[in-house]
Amino acid sequence: MALTTLADAFYHELCDIYHAEKQLTRALPKMAKRASSVELAKAFEAHLAETQEQILRVEAAFADTGKPPKAKKCEAMAGLIEEASSVLQEEADPEVMDAALICCAQKVEHYEIATYGTLCTWADKLGYKAAKQALGENLDEEESTDKKLTKLSKTVNRRAKAAASA
Amino acid sequence: MALTTLADAFYHELCDIYHAEKQLTRALPKMAKRASSVELAKAFEAHLAETQEQILRVEAAFADTGKPPKAKKCEAMAGLIEEASSVLQEEADPEVMDAALICCAQKVEHYEIATYGTLCTWADKLGYKAAKQALGENLDEEESTDKKLTKLSKTVNRRAKAAASA
Repeated sequence: MALTTLADAFYHELCDIYHAEKQLTRALPKMAKRASSVELAKAFEAHLAETQEQILRVEAAFADTGKPPKAKKCEAMAGLIEEASSVLQEEADPEVMDAALICCAQKVEHYEIATYGTLCTWADKLGYKAAKQALGENLDEEESTDKKLTKLSKTVNRRAKAAASA
Repeated sequence: MALTTLADAFYHELCDIYHAEKQLTRALPKMAKRASSVELAKAFEAHLAETQEQILRVEAAFADTGKPPKAKKCEAMAGLIEEASSVLQEEADPEVMDAALICCAQKVEHYEIATYGTLCTWADKLGYKAAKQALGENLDEEESTDKKLTKLSKTVNRRAKAAASA
């Protein structure tokens, strides 16, 4: 795919996040299952439901490009999920596992924040009003999930440290 | 590597960012070379110099763990760099390439912000004072690089849009 115009770059990036979000819907249930903290498991499940909505918004955003929705393998999200999968397989103290899961999830959130941030800026430049609105909602949700995870990490890290000292 | 204690999780994550930063020192020169905007090329070169200092700080942070510095393949950074490499190889309008390069770089910065954020929180919990100080400096630099890129993107995106309309 040649990057002749900013619209090409936008489409390229939209195909990337479309694939990334789809990959994430397969990883989140495993993370929820491995979490010991009920609050953390619930946060992952809530984010799975949000991610499913976000995929629909990404699909809607394609309309402004005049091109069909297409998922292009997102190598970065593949790497992030591979890292998370390797953490999931570790033998671990349950509290320490929770702390490590939050770390993995916040990396994913930050990937999405960076991507949606750029997409919103480009949508604005390109006059893609509906896409800007839809992707802006996704960006807000990712930022709010990241903050929620930071809040949860306070209790989780305290428990993990206590486990470490036991 | 079993995650028995929070200290194990910290060491695991420190080995990950150590490898990530090393990978980045090989990617940044290619990004600088491909940038058309002189300011953007300079920003990548400046961040390369910073990254080299950051690697030394990460090495210093290992001292608090009582274990030797070890680089553990960071799959997420590998994916981020693979994505950037694929962008570098695209046929592109020079201004659009600059916009796409900033997008790749901000994803990298966000990965590092998430990682150093967690590492600083864990260092604090673990009483790793020197590590917290060193990694906190790295975190500040990543956040400041991300802001610098957002600022640069304003001009770059305007030029890319103009190229797109030409």
